[in-house]
Amino acid sequence: MRKLSLFIATSLDGYIAKPNDDLSFLKLVEKEGEDYGYAEFTSSIDTIILGRKTYDYVVREIGSSHYDNGERNVYVITRTEKPPVGKTTFYTGNLTELIQKLKATNGKNIYCDGGAEIINELLIHDLIDEFIISVIPILVGNGTRLFKDGRPEQLLELLSIKKFNTGLTQLHFRRKK
Amino acid sequence: MRKLSLFIATSLDGYIAKPNDDLSFLKLVEKEGEDYGYAEFTSSIDTIILGRKTYDYVVREIGSSHYDNGERNVYVITRTEKPPVGKTTFYTGNLTELIQKLKATNGKNIYCDGGAEIINELLIHDLIDEFIISVIPILVGNGTRLFKDGRPEQLLELLSIKKFNTGLTQLHFRRKK
Repeated sequence: MRKLSLFIATSLDGYIAKPNDDLSFLKLVEKEGEDYGYAEFTSSIDTIILGRKTYDYVVREIGSSHYDNGERNVYVITRTEKPPVGKTTFYTGNLTELIQKLKATNGKNIYCDGGAEIINELLIHDLIDEFIISVIPILVGNGTRLFKDGRPEQLLELLSIKKFNTGLTQLHFRRKK
Repeated sequence: MRKLSLFIATSLDGYIAKPNDDLSFLKLVEKEGEDYGYAEFTSSIDTIILGRKTYDYVVREIGSSHYDNGERNVYVITRTEKPPVGKTTFYTGNLTELIQKLKATNGKNIYCDGGAEIINELLIHDLIDEFIISVIPILVGNGTRLFKDGRPEQLLELLSIKKFNTGLTQLHFRRKK
């Protein structure tokens, strides 16, 4: 069955962004030629799930071609109906149903690209199978937390850890059945 | 100069306890003969700082001999004056002044043994020099967070990472000057 994976960076104190969507702390670990396994990871997926705010942010900062490259199915979770753009669907239905339907069809893996609202919604319904979490060596002190309060307990299995000389640590877990 | 160090375990989602001081998830990584470097760490310290609630909890669960073993100076940070017990002092003064005074005197390192309130108070005043954080492979979903909102940003240097076959990952950072 297809897996739903998270591939995300967080500060040591657990924030994925500082207030006002400030991601500047990610620059601390930017290094030419080092993608921390992102290209390898994305070659294993053919479907992206993300929240509408994250989609708007990326389209504004990078452009819609980041998602709509003709190769991958993209599902933007939103409350506002909108016609599809290429292979990008704006999905207003039930999130659990969408994930169950996607997992039951053939294909490569599914990547949840954030944001925190969608990630926590998926965690509440125990739908994330794999976690690749990159820890940036900083305490940012405030912002958007990767993990919100009020989720069910979930046991994980540690698969691997990687240390990069930029100070980034990558932890790879999968959900215990 | 003496260092102030944190040596603490947290769930992957950043909690040091589940609601009602439930630490049962730590049992997931208990293994005979494996102390995750705790004895080596405590051999490098001669002074312990901790909060009153944590002190009461440990005294109730383990006994006062856990702290009052005659070898170490223990400072319990509290609002209620109380006479010392052996080398355990109940400190009602200014926390920053205490740490600055301790750091300026000779001795081995200083260990902050929690809880979250004292840790965050120390972080707000930029007083923690070293972080040894053990990540337990579980999302507990709720409880007492290691890092609270509203602290200043602090850059860290990654010193080492260790993977244990129980699934525990230990991350070792120090504060960047």
